[in-house]
Amino acid sequence: MSSDLEATIARLQRGVVETFPHVPDSTKPEENLWVYLRQTERPLRIKFGIDPTGSEIHLGHSIVLRKLRQFQDAGHCAVLIIGDFTAQIGDPSGKSEVRKQLTPEEVAANVQTYLEQVKPILDFETPGRLEIRYNSEWLAKLDLRKILELLGTMTVGQMLAKEGFAERYAKETPIFLHEFLYPLMQGYDSVAVAADVELGGTDQKFNIAVGRDLQRHFRLPTVQFGLLMPILVGTDGVQKMSKSLGNYVALTESAASMYSKLEKIPDALVNQYIELLTDLPLDSLPTNPRDRQKALALEVVSQYHGRDLALQTQAELAAIVTQGQTAQAESIPEYSLGAFQFPVKLTYVLSHTKLCPSSSEARRQIQGGGVRLNGEKITDVDFTLTAAEPYVNQVLQVGKKKFLRFVP
Amino acid sequence: MSSDLEATIARLQRGVVETFPHVPDSTKPEENLWVYLRQTERPLRIKFGIDPTGSEIHLGHSIVLRKLRQFQDAGHCAVLIIGDFTAQIGDPSGKSEVRKQLTPEEVAANVQTYLEQVKPILDFETPGRLEIRYNSEWLAKLDLRKILELLGTMTVGQMLAKEGFAERYAKETPIFLHEFLYPLMQGYDSVAVAADVELGGTDQKFNIAVGRDLQRHFRLPTVQFGLLMPILVGTDGVQKMSKSLGNYVALTESAASMYSKLEKIPDALVNQYIELLTDLPLDSLPTNPRDRQKALALEVVSQYHGRDLALQTQAELAAIVTQGQTAQAESIPEYSLGAFQFPVKLTYVLSHTKLCPSSSEARRQIQGGGVRLNGEKITDVDFTLTAAEPYVNQVLQVGKKKFLRFVP
Repeated sequence: MSSDLEATIARLQRGVVETFPHVPDSTKPEENLWVYLRQTERPLRIKFGIDPTGSEIHLGHSIVLRKLRQFQDAGHCAVLIIGDFTAQIGDPSGKSEVRKQLTPEEVAANVQTYLEQVKPILDFETPGRLEIRYNSEWLAKLDLRKILELLGTMTVGQMLAKEGFAERYAKETPIFLHEFLYPLMQGYDSVAVAADVELGGTDQKFNIAVGRDLQRHFRLPTVQFGLLMPILVGTDGVQKMSKSLGNYVALTESAASMYSKLEKIPDALVNQYIELLTDLPLDSLPTNPRDRQKALALEVVSQYHGRDLALQTQAELAAIVTQGQTAQAESIPEYSLGAFQFPVKLTYVLSHTKLCPSSSEARRQIQGGGVRLNGEKITDVDFTLTAAEPYVNQVLQVGKKKFLRFVP
Repeated sequence: MSSDLEATIARLQRGVVETFPHVPDSTKPEENLWVYLRQTERPLRIKFGIDPTGSEIHLGHSIVLRKLRQFQDAGHCAVLIIGDFTAQIGDPSGKSEVRKQLTPEEVAANVQTYLEQVKPILDFETPGRLEIRYNSEWLAKLDLRKILELLGTMTVGQMLAKEGFAERYAKETPIFLHEFLYPLMQGYDSVAVAADVELGGTDQKFNIAVGRDLQRHFRLPTVQFGLLMPILVGTDGVQKMSKSLGNYVALTESAASMYSKLEKIPDALVNQYIELLTDLPLDSLPTNPRDRQKALALEVVSQYHGRDLALQTQAELAAIVTQGQTAQAESIPEYSLGAFQFPVKLTYVLSHTKLCPSSSEARRQIQGGGVRLNGEKITDVDFTLTAAEPYVNQVLQVGKKKFLRFVP
């Protein structure tokens, strides 16, 4: 065994919650992904499915994408499945707000947006390392005979045991029958692309297992492994990272915004963030939590904005924080975000907090480049704060001397 | 209202367990089938679905078919749906012995057999009174999008409330997901043929109601009524008539066999049999139960074999019964069917019961036309008794003098 291969495998194992099937000391490749990876000579097909809903990708999403990249780097092929079929159907029962029906043009635009966001993570260049597939290619062709066959592979009891369904059934919240088809459709994707490994968050275990069953049912030569990554806890340190909770860091955020959020990550999370979001060696991390936060922030910002801008941002924010500390020492007020009804315009915030004497002066200051939010220059006079949470502890600054720190 | 129309409606109402929807004193045609029938000017489309499994049709099946004929006679169009689609699929989970997969040729042959058996019941001649449709015409065209839409009209809870599913779920007998599609497929048949009324046994209420829901979902101009007929109790007077229980009278049975079974129908059933299987006026039936049995037997045999053969059979069997009573008076044995392992060859029965001295003599007697079973001449030397029940109380006769009556 080459030490290169072992280093590769160690990298692939980093942060993984579970692979399945997994018989720990097995020497049979079909029982243990790591044994399989040591023995196989062919590039494996590593499946990851996404919904082209056009939403902003955040660091929570990046965990699985980074793992996908690590497989690419190890010589395997990332098979990115775009769930355009379901997106174009929406929710046929009309009961779900989540599954909005999209036109093919909207799907195409959303895919474009998605790919642009994940460009810093995946390897789009090396030949044979990325395959992008649309599941309408095979799902639109399914007829009733085949769908009866798919449905016939599972029982009501198995489906109702699935997390989510079980709770809804117990609470007598209606479960519409078509919902049972979605895991089977995702599973059938694995058949269609002959996936060897499917990646997902821990919430995907059931669906990935369905893919295994269907590959077996349709007698594929190999049956996929599941590889599950943790669900990232958000910047609040409590709930999973999610756009709707405001506790997220988007991949497209400015270097300053990203850095300032990450350098304040709760101590309890910083090690997990480093493990999941960076390649920093875990055995030589700074002992001081504050230094670990900085290392995390610098590393992640480097991934999305390059090392130079990351270092510059670090320096700038350090200066502002110093000024902010000075400001704090001079008792410049903290300001409660509770005072606002969100969404709220920045011009209103500036006048309401008396950082500017009026909204029109606030507008002028923004146009003149005198307003910064956590060190980032705001130039859009219509800039709007959509919710309170992202701004907790952020510093709003007008000119060189006026500061204010938001508090909850 | 013409008295003709009222007579027609009375005939259509005969034996009906339930129509739905049904608001008893409503004047709205959509709430009451009988109001609808009095008001509509157009011929209605009366749906009845069959599985082309090639099985023998018996009097239990004839009840709904007779009702369908009555609608034809009233000027409406019988829409006979051949479930060829599902028959050609079989059971995709492979778990059901019942749903055998059939080739198109087998389906065609079974449909032929079916139509031959129901020829005495339905009106095949009058133009516009019969439409035969194969549901593969529309089901084979369904794609995943449409199937998700169909499934999205119902919840798991509604489906599990269905009789059969409810019990199996409670008993933890596996219910495979594709089974949920069958009621929706049957319901979609109602959409495809724009049925105005669907006929069925009382066990079909759920499926017919699904048809109503789907017609509404797909915004058909009218929504079908359900009309439910009773499930016929078999000749044993206990369980529903069924081939596997042996308590049935097949439509293709000889006049003698049919007559002899019907004239022994338990007293408790004879009125229901007359109501459901004949057009005899119910208010002027013979008071003597024995005469009612004979009237029933004569009437039903007339339907399938014509009046002349029915009368002849009645006379012949009366003679045999008289001879049989003579024989009984001379203490010719009753013989227990329990002595045999079924299926059993008639030649073995004849020698074992000593009606013939040997199997070869039994064979000669059969070939010579000397053997009768309940008055019907047996000419097939390989004639086999498949089960005990159908032969209880039947008389086996060799020549003019040797008789034996089977007892359980």
